[in-house]
Amino acid sequence: MTRLSSYFVRTLRQDPADAEVPSHKWLVRAGYIRRVAPGLYSWLPLGLRVMHKIEKLVREEMDACGAIEVRFPGLLPREPYELTQRWTDYGDTLFRLQDRKGADYLLGPTHEEFFTLLVKDLYSSYKDLPLTLYQIQTKYRDEARPRAGLLRCREFVMKDAYTFDIDDAGLAKGYQNQRDAYIKIFDRLGIKYVIVTAMSGAMGGSRSEEFLALAENGEDTFVQSPGGFAANAEAVRFPLAEPVDWSEVGEIQVVDTPGTGTIIELVEMLNQRYPCADRVWEAGDTLKNVAFMLTDSDGSKTPLIIGLPGDREVDAKRLAAAVEPAIAEPFTDADFAAYPQLTKGYIGSVLYVNQQATQVLGEQREFKIRYLTDPRVGAGSAWVTGANVPDQHQLNVVAGRDFAADGIIDVAEIHDGDPAPDGSGPLSLARGIEIGHVFQLGRKYADALGLQVLDQNGKLVTVTMGSYGLGVSRLVATIAETTCDEKGLAWPRIVAPFDVHIIAAGKDEAVLAAAEELAAKLDSVGVEVILDDRKVSPGVKFADGELLGIPTLVVIGRGLATGVVEVRDRASGASQEVPVEAVYDHLISQIRNELPV
Amino acid sequence: MTRLSSYFVRTLRQDPADAEVPSHKWLVRAGYIRRVAPGLYSWLPLGLRVMHKIEKLVREEMDACGAIEVRFPGLLPREPYELTQRWTDYGDTLFRLQDRKGADYLLGPTHEEFFTLLVKDLYSSYKDLPLTLYQIQTKYRDEARPRAGLLRCREFVMKDAYTFDIDDAGLAKGYQNQRDAYIKIFDRLGIKYVIVTAMSGAMGGSRSEEFLALAENGEDTFVQSPGGFAANAEAVRFPLAEPVDWSEVGEIQVVDTPGTGTIIELVEMLNQRYPCADRVWEAGDTLKNVAFMLTDSDGSKTPLIIGLPGDREVDAKRLAAAVEPAIAEPFTDADFAAYPQLTKGYIGSVLYVNQQATQVLGEQREFKIRYLTDPRVGAGSAWVTGANVPDQHQLNVVAGRDFAADGIIDVAEIHDGDPAPDGSGPLSLARGIEIGHVFQLGRKYADALGLQVLDQNGKLVTVTMGSYGLGVSRLVATIAETTCDEKGLAWPRIVAPFDVHIIAAGKDEAVLAAAEELAAKLDSVGVEVILDDRKVSPGVKFADGELLGIPTLVVIGRGLATGVVEVRDRASGASQEVPVEAVYDHLISQIRNELPV
Repeated sequence: MTRLSSYFVRTLRQDPADAEVPSHKWLVRAGYIRRVAPGLYSWLPLGLRVMHKIEKLVREEMDACGAIEVRFPGLLPREPYELTQRWTDYGDTLFRLQDRKGADYLLGPTHEEFFTLLVKDLYSSYKDLPLTLYQIQTKYRDEARPRAGLLRCREFVMKDAYTFDIDDAGLAKGYQNQRDAYIKIFDRLGIKYVIVTAMSGAMGGSRSEEFLALAENGEDTFVQSPGGFAANAEAVRFPLAEPVDWSEVGEIQVVDTPGTGTIIELVEMLNQRYPCADRVWEAGDTLKNVAFMLTDSDGSKTPLIIGLPGDREVDAKRLAAAVEPAIAEPFTDADFAAYPQLTKGYIGSVLYVNQQATQVLGEQREFKIRYLTDPRVGAGSAWVTGANVPDQHQLNVVAGRDFAADGIIDVAEIHDGDPAPDGSGPLSLARGIEIGHVFQLGRKYADALGLQVLDQNGKLVTVTMGSYGLGVSRLVATIAETTCDEKGLAWPRIVAPFDVHIIAAGKDEAVLAAAEELAAKLDSVGVEVILDDRKVSPGVKFADGELLGIPTLVVIGRGLATGVVEVRDRASGASQEVPVEAVYDHLISQIRNELPV
Repeated sequence: MTRLSSYFVRTLRQDPADAEVPSHKWLVRAGYIRRVAPGLYSWLPLGLRVMHKIEKLVREEMDACGAIEVRFPGLLPREPYELTQRWTDYGDTLFRLQDRKGADYLLGPTHEEFFTLLVKDLYSSYKDLPLTLYQIQTKYRDEARPRAGLLRCREFVMKDAYTFDIDDAGLAKGYQNQRDAYIKIFDRLGIKYVIVTAMSGAMGGSRSEEFLALAENGEDTFVQSPGGFAANAEAVRFPLAEPVDWSEVGEIQVVDTPGTGTIIELVEMLNQRYPCADRVWEAGDTLKNVAFMLTDSDGSKTPLIIGLPGDREVDAKRLAAAVEPAIAEPFTDADFAAYPQLTKGYIGSVLYVNQQATQVLGEQREFKIRYLTDPRVGAGSAWVTGANVPDQHQLNVVAGRDFAADGIIDVAEIHDGDPAPDGSGPLSLARGIEIGHVFQLGRKYADALGLQVLDQNGKLVTVTMGSYGLGVSRLVATIAETTCDEKGLAWPRIVAPFDVHIIAAGKDEAVLAAAEELAAKLDSVGVEVILDDRKVSPGVKFADGELLGIPTLVVIGRGLATGVVEVRDRASGASQEVPVEAVYDHLISQIRNELPV
């Protein structure tokens, strides 16, 4: 039994200044975690108990699905990450350091390289495969913006698994096996989640899905269609617009549009000065060209112009995912000065002089400026766009007639109700927290590091791999985030730090004695009990009871005189009076019911 | 049940090139660990199982003694280590790095600072104390010479506990409580160990003891006396020699001793040219002055001359411990060039010219060179020592008459049979592996970081602390080192990765079926079984059986025809034939016997 009077927990009455989301606020206030530095937290006893329970459950399901546990160091030498280019590709997110001899090391952000090398080191034949290895281990990423407590940390605990197979069919099976295990884990934890198509990002590889816990404060936006399509917003790909007939569209017409640096101003002026015959100009009639400067991981910079309909913005996260490992930032005035052929506020793909159209943007053109357009900019579509001259725009600029982009980039903001890519109706948008990610890496790492085995014919073949991440410490926050209420935490029993929280309410000796007796009896059969035996007021104890979020609260107080105690369910708030002689059996049956052996 | 045919273990027939000690060799060859970089190891499945068992046992005993578990990050901000000076004092042993914003961080080598700050953060009253916190966590030290596999790593798992008390009596009690828990832990693990007085080193603080596992290959040398005195060699303090009467000793006599840069040469020449009246000169008659250059953690350098009897060498580890955090290195030729008053090979404390003795060495003397002498150099003792002039020595140099040192330094090599400091007889020397270290830190960290609480009178008092380390990953190697034999590992059951190793020896279907059946039956009652079902020869299986070191080996092979299987005890080698129908009960009773519930 744990006595609150001597346990290392102090609840706080004030919200932490940096708390952006409820889970962060409550985990700090209830004494589960404590901040050490940006994105670095200490686990206090209550928090550590929750994490240990999640670790145990994850380990059970990994072992059950045939994965074998190992553990790599967190401190790793540079060379293998050099061979896969991740030493540079990871950019500032990688913690790098040198040892006393000046050799380069890193703190592992994920361990594909070393798992690959380990298998290469010990295995040599197709007979050794398939193989699934995993670890539950501390990882490090120097996040640009650590936030939301445990949701985006710089040091965190992750379960990472890796499959090794001789062929694609084996990889598909190993992937499915891990995916199934994730479903079991998240179902057992009682989390509401969706599985969405995801970007592979810096990992490389082909198929990849994310498990997103549904949460308003989640960092990830995902879309779902009526037909069952589900994807992370970063991974949605809209079809290229069908070509349309442009034969009725007139020549490019250059018009004066002074002071129309924004789409709203432009549309207003178009409708005033250059009204359409049959309808009003709308933002969607304009082609907005937005300039970004890309910084590659080697530090080199190249401009990128993105053309998209004027009623859409570029989505920063979709753009970041599309250009990774490069970093995209909006053009600065200095950038504009360096590229005088781009007229701020009036960028266009075409310069139209003396009825002669010359395409300005594009890698094959004079200034070699990369130009990518939104999939909605289909062949034959006509647009109002910048004239590349201050205070002028062009009408009737036709894609495929007057300009051709270097390619498609699908990074526009998605609007709720946009037609779904699978054609099944309107998309709906929602937010979630990434709790798991499964990847079919394929042969990227095995190729880079030379992991080959002999096949049945004695021929060396490259192994194909999958990689499977699950955020153990993030799950603590995710479960907190999705179960807490306005009074504090409310843990599901399977991860709760304790089963029963007994409050001795009152100074009466009999109250404390009854509380001690019940706690000892429950403790003796393995029920995890925390007893609030502190010398503080019942009000403080009740508030802390709500805050700590143990699933079952037992209040022993005034009712004792008439032979009853109160049993309260933290999550639902449901409360009932139970005769004191029946409360032990009542609790045991309730716990057994919720946690079947 | 675990099948060796699909388990991630590959045994090696070759010793690893860098293996210096048996445990390292066997842990690598048996597939328990794998080297990633100097002092960095991956835990393979078998090794991780052993570590998990040790972790669990340590956690049980920590919880049982009232310590409360928390967990700090491995990555820590610089500032608190700055306040305790350990940011610099740790020297090159500290892994330092910067984050993307250029802020300084370190990888925690031990966590006194952050435990102190955490308690300061949450506690404020004497009523909150005593308190014992602990963590089982990954630590980092950039060792100058990582060696012996897991015995001296750069990343390792440690249990570190900290006690917080209001007064010295509380500290003594908390210290005893942890010390008792260590005794329970090491006794349960079946380790043979001694508890010795230790140096506090960089930790600071007063009382400190080490738990040393007896091991020939241990890095630590310790001494024991017939009277029960036991200390790490670094911590032994010999009494200062009693003053002796020097009235019969003559004046200093300078003699020519060309080419006697060593004590042996000197003694030989003395006996030839300047024979003693009543006896022969011996090395112990000479006072050897050895020059060291100390480099402080801030990089500053100061010379230190150590005077000790010529029959002893300076012990590098005792010296390192004595001057820490500074680093001592023998004088180089460049150092001698910078201090021309020190004549290489002929250093003496006194310049004797025209029957006038001038003390050269000493902080208060002209050259301000620190001079410390061995405790055997007592007042009145007469010595032959260097004349500070090439090829000359002095006879009759009397301590206290002709020179006075700045102080005592007790860093001479200890010889087996030296008189024990407790006066109980001769010292015996032995070697061990440090597996635990308990410290009374006192108020060093609480003072530096301002950890104060209100006492019973409402007055702020500084908390007194203890710190208690136990090497979890090092214990894996220590147990391996002290139990292995010439065939491989031989785990005690309490930490063995499996209980029973069943070898199906032979290609007979009946053999494999019987092995599978026994394995399944044992597995069903929770016995941890590994079944060697590989398609390799019985010889390979037997060799691997010895190598892996599972406590009980069951060989199912030819004997099956006559209804018997062989049950072998790995550690003792004892083997017996057991009727196949009785083997299950035989094994269960054996395991229950060795691992009482």
